[in-house]
Amino acid sequence: MKGLVANERFVDLEKGEQTSPAYLSINPAGVIPALVEDGYPPLTQSMAILEFLEEKVPQPPLLPSDLHGRARVRSLSALLVTDTNSLLPPRVKKYLSLHGGFDEAAWQAWQVHWLTSNLESLERRLATDPQTGRFCHGDTPTMADICLVSIVFRAQALQVDLDSMPTLRDIAANCAALDAFARAHPLLQEGAPRDA
Amino acid sequence: MKGLVANERFVDLEKGEQTSPAYLSINPAGVIPALVEDGYPPLTQSMAILEFLEEKVPQPPLLPSDLHGRARVRSLSALLVTDTNSLLPPRVKKYLSLHGGFDEAAWQAWQVHWLTSNLESLERRLATDPQTGRFCHGDTPTMADICLVSIVFRAQALQVDLDSMPTLRDIAANCAALDAFARAHPLLQEGAPRDA
Repeated sequence: MKGLVANERFVDLEKGEQTSPAYLSINPAGVIPALVEDGYPPLTQSMAILEFLEEKVPQPPLLPSDLHGRARVRSLSALLVTDTNSLLPPRVKKYLSLHGGFDEAAWQAWQVHWLTSNLESLERRLATDPQTGRFCHGDTPTMADICLVSIVFRAQALQVDLDSMPTLRDIAANCAALDAFARAHPLLQEGAPRDA
Repeated sequence: MKGLVANERFVDLEKGEQTSPAYLSINPAGVIPALVEDGYPPLTQSMAILEFLEEKVPQPPLLPSDLHGRARVRSLSALLVTDTNSLLPPRVKKYLSLHGGFDEAAWQAWQVHWLTSNLESLERRLATDPQTGRFCHGDTPTMADICLVSIVFRAQALQVDLDSMPTLRDIAANCAALDAFARAHPLLQEGAPRDA
């Protein structure tokens, strides 16, 4: 969307590549993603990367121009990234498996619980708010939509029922119709399962 | 720090007040915090609130003025808020207790694990980075320090050993010496345990 070209490097979480010496030299915390820019230390954390790209390349804007609109988009994004996505990484699965006796079904139920409860909460918020449009905030995509599509994709992969979330479903469909979103679809990314 | 006056309203999480009809009318997601400003919808999510206050009252700045410095502070903040704090709320405790059989000791171990691993990771980052100063970023406090002190407080309450984290410990002490931080100390807030 910003017209930037990035060289993507796939880090295979299933194989534990995020804790390889090569990756730890980029992010000692051993978590993805990381943005490596020549001459600067690697930048980690999804939201920090989105805010950085927004400031570096302001056009087209992915945050509204008004103070309260920006706050709303950041709040919606945080509900998706901070309250939802952060509960679902491999390191949490590992802990629950080792110390909570979670098997694959229990891990699945954990993911479905947080995806469902937070997406339902987001649906209620978006459905009743006049600032919601074709996208999470008005009729142009923002950071919140970028955060939304990856969570919706994960929810769909886990058969979370989105029928009761028509606002979210429509917004995700409106995103999918945009070229930049279509090109970034998870199944088109390196390392995506071929049979999905 | 911004010279703003807020009327704080305590929401007792132990008593489940976050899911009372009164609070759900403010935040339907039933989670704290929420900033209520006359004439605007309530604003939720800690980082969105911090960014909003920074834009509304730019002085004194809690983000650096340069692009990469801002990105660094946001990344440090997210390691604390997104990767750490989001794993520790009452709703996660409830799920683990109901569906993972976690007793009080297992819940304590869960908290200590995430606090220790993420604070150790942050210590390594701060200790080796020349941009670290008396505070997380240089010699004036930023959003990252605000995020840090509440996590360090929680870690100390759970007897996490900070001896191996001298950089963090010094930064937290430098924060505590500032009047604005001292006045906002968790034990001075409404609802704090009196015997702690």
